[in-house]
Amino acid sequence: MAQTTPNHTQTVPGWAAMDSSGKMHPFVFKRRENGVDDVTIKILYCGMCHSDIHYAKNEWGISVYPLVPGHEITGIVTQVGSNVGKFKVGDRVGVGFIAASCLTCEFCEDDQEQYCEQMQSNCSSVFWDGSITYGGYSRMMVANNRYVVHIPDSLPLDSAAPLLCAGISVFGPMKQHNMMEVPGKKLGVVGLGGLGHIAVKFGKAFGLHVTVISTSPSKEREAREVLGADNFLLSTNSEHMKEGIRTLDYIIDTVSANHSLGPMLMLLKVRGILTIVGAPEKPMELPSFPLIFGNRTVSGSIIGGMKETQEMMDICGKHNITCDIELVKPEKINEAFDRLARNDVRYRFVIDIAASEGSKM
Amino acid sequence: MAQTTPNHTQTVPGWAAMDSSGKMHPFVFKRRENGVDDVTIKILYCGMCHSDIHYAKNEWGISVYPLVPGHEITGIVTQVGSNVGKFKVGDRVGVGFIAASCLTCEFCEDDQEQYCEQMQSNCSSVFWDGSITYGGYSRMMVANNRYVVHIPDSLPLDSAAPLLCAGISVFGPMKQHNMMEVPGKKLGVVGLGGLGHIAVKFGKAFGLHVTVISTSPSKEREAREVLGADNFLLSTNSEHMKEGIRTLDYIIDTVSANHSLGPMLMLLKVRGILTIVGAPEKPMELPSFPLIFGNRTVSGSIIGGMKETQEMMDICGKHNITCDIELVKPEKINEAFDRLARNDVRYRFVIDIAASEGSKM
Repeated sequence: MAQTTPNHTQTVPGWAAMDSSGKMHPFVFKRRENGVDDVTIKILYCGMCHSDIHYAKNEWGISVYPLVPGHEITGIVTQVGSNVGKFKVGDRVGVGFIAASCLTCEFCEDDQEQYCEQMQSNCSSVFWDGSITYGGYSRMMVANNRYVVHIPDSLPLDSAAPLLCAGISVFGPMKQHNMMEVPGKKLGVVGLGGLGHIAVKFGKAFGLHVTVISTSPSKEREAREVLGADNFLLSTNSEHMKEGIRTLDYIIDTVSANHSLGPMLMLLKVRGILTIVGAPEKPMELPSFPLIFGNRTVSGSIIGGMKETQEMMDICGKHNITCDIELVKPEKINEAFDRLARNDVRYRFVIDIAASEGSKM
Repeated sequence: MAQTTPNHTQTVPGWAAMDSSGKMHPFVFKRRENGVDDVTIKILYCGMCHSDIHYAKNEWGISVYPLVPGHEITGIVTQVGSNVGKFKVGDRVGVGFIAASCLTCEFCEDDQEQYCEQMQSNCSSVFWDGSITYGGYSRMMVANNRYVVHIPDSLPLDSAAPLLCAGISVFGPMKQHNMMEVPGKKLGVVGLGGLGHIAVKFGKAFGLHVTVISTSPSKEREAREVLGADNFLLSTNSEHMKEGIRTLDYIIDTVSANHSLGPMLMLLKVRGILTIVGAPEKPMELPSFPLIFGNRTVSGSIIGGMKETQEMMDICGKHNITCDIELVKPEKINEAFDRLARNDVRYRFVIDIAASEGSKM
């Protein structure tokens, strides 16, 4: 177990699921000492990602209990290892999904650590020393400095936290497909949730024409007036969808519910690119005709490498892009999980970790 | 009707389906006079593509009867319009799927006429003059010279015929994804039929390492010994498929039967590209995990533009690439259709159009 390995000496209060009920409880555990390449972070905020529920309830079959979720972490550096040059005590920093990677494979060398076969995540992964990783639903973290980013001074640490996963999940494919350098091109964003609302903000910051595609008519006003989307297509309205045929250059599909890709592909121009960043549990339906007759592409993407995560943060700092969040106290994690499972949040819960100090949840 | 428009003066014997039974009958019809941009071709051979059956039986709901199929056409030029510079009487030529396109859209201007929204095919399409197009199951054709290619002298006209569809269908995505310029990269070919066996030949000609992936153990010997494939994976063998995980750079999936893309995607390296060139009638199953965790791409492609069709022909001439065919006489078209529907052909039927001269089928 993690807390019994010799160098795991630091006691940390946190919150864990103890079994597949997914119910969160206060949980005290140990983290490793701060190594030469590590920084220790006093965690102030942690975003709540849908995958936290999947982990907590073992819905992917890979969970190890007790399970401390959380990979949208922001806080303040309190200790710095002797090899660490880029951080100092007091720095405002963020940690995302990645805890470690091999550093020698082509993906690590190419700053795309997320595709390293030995990548370890900050939750329920087996770390190099054999310990199980514990995530950001806790008051302190020790992280290898490679996997830590600076948070620009202009960004509040609470609303910046979800950028570490929701943000980079949509920024990654936008960078990969050069969407930052083609102002005026037309981007569709399917689903207006944690990932989708950030994709709209990035799209507008990059000068793209942004269309939100959603099953909820109630999201039109928010999409247009609050987030600045240029267009809105109600995907259940066949007239809407017909009008949209062959109009978009790119689509970012953030929907985790099962859905057919056919109607989305039809919205793309010839050679358009649809990027999947959600993770529906069942296979999606992919009809061949809109794919082959439009020379279209469906591509998948997961978060981003550390270098591009920092790049994204700096861009967010420049454009004042943060997530729209609802702050919750740690004692309300279970309620927030319930609401999150119903998509009842605009657009991301962020746990106010420091708010719980002294309390027992 | 086509044969009653004023300039449709040339009488042509051919073979047509008269209704959705798909049964082929001798059928005499008229074609237009040779216009200033046209060439007239004495048809010698016409390949039989799976889609000919779909057309003959109206399985796509777009057929107009009488229906003369055929878009893998080779023959000899017998007449040349006054504006035509690149062909002369006696030239050995080929005609594929495309009969016309708008010539002014971005795709026509980019020599990708197959994606022109007004593209008209050589079978069951409404031509500019309002007539219905008749395909290559006939003795003569009038074609706009833009949609005609030269057949290199080194290629027999019978085994070159299927290159006009089966060949270009796999060459198109190979060119699009730069597979001609990366010798040593690893290509998987799913399905060893009309398209698949040509993909293997192209792959070997381009210096790629080629793996055939098939449900038929009986195809291994043929794949390796006759076609020169470097490897063979039996897709029903889980050990085979496990060994193949993350080994391929590209996959060309030629299978028209319904199948899940998940096991194929797993064979791709990170950022690998799977191109769909078959047209399964039902949506394919696309699981999100192998797509997103591998940053992989599924792309669709349909035939190719005329410029690249000529480029392909020239490459085939240089490398002596032709299709493995079984010649059939026109009176055996119905039998060949039956066998084609059962995939009982290695690897393409080609109708010996000239063999029927004087006969009535």
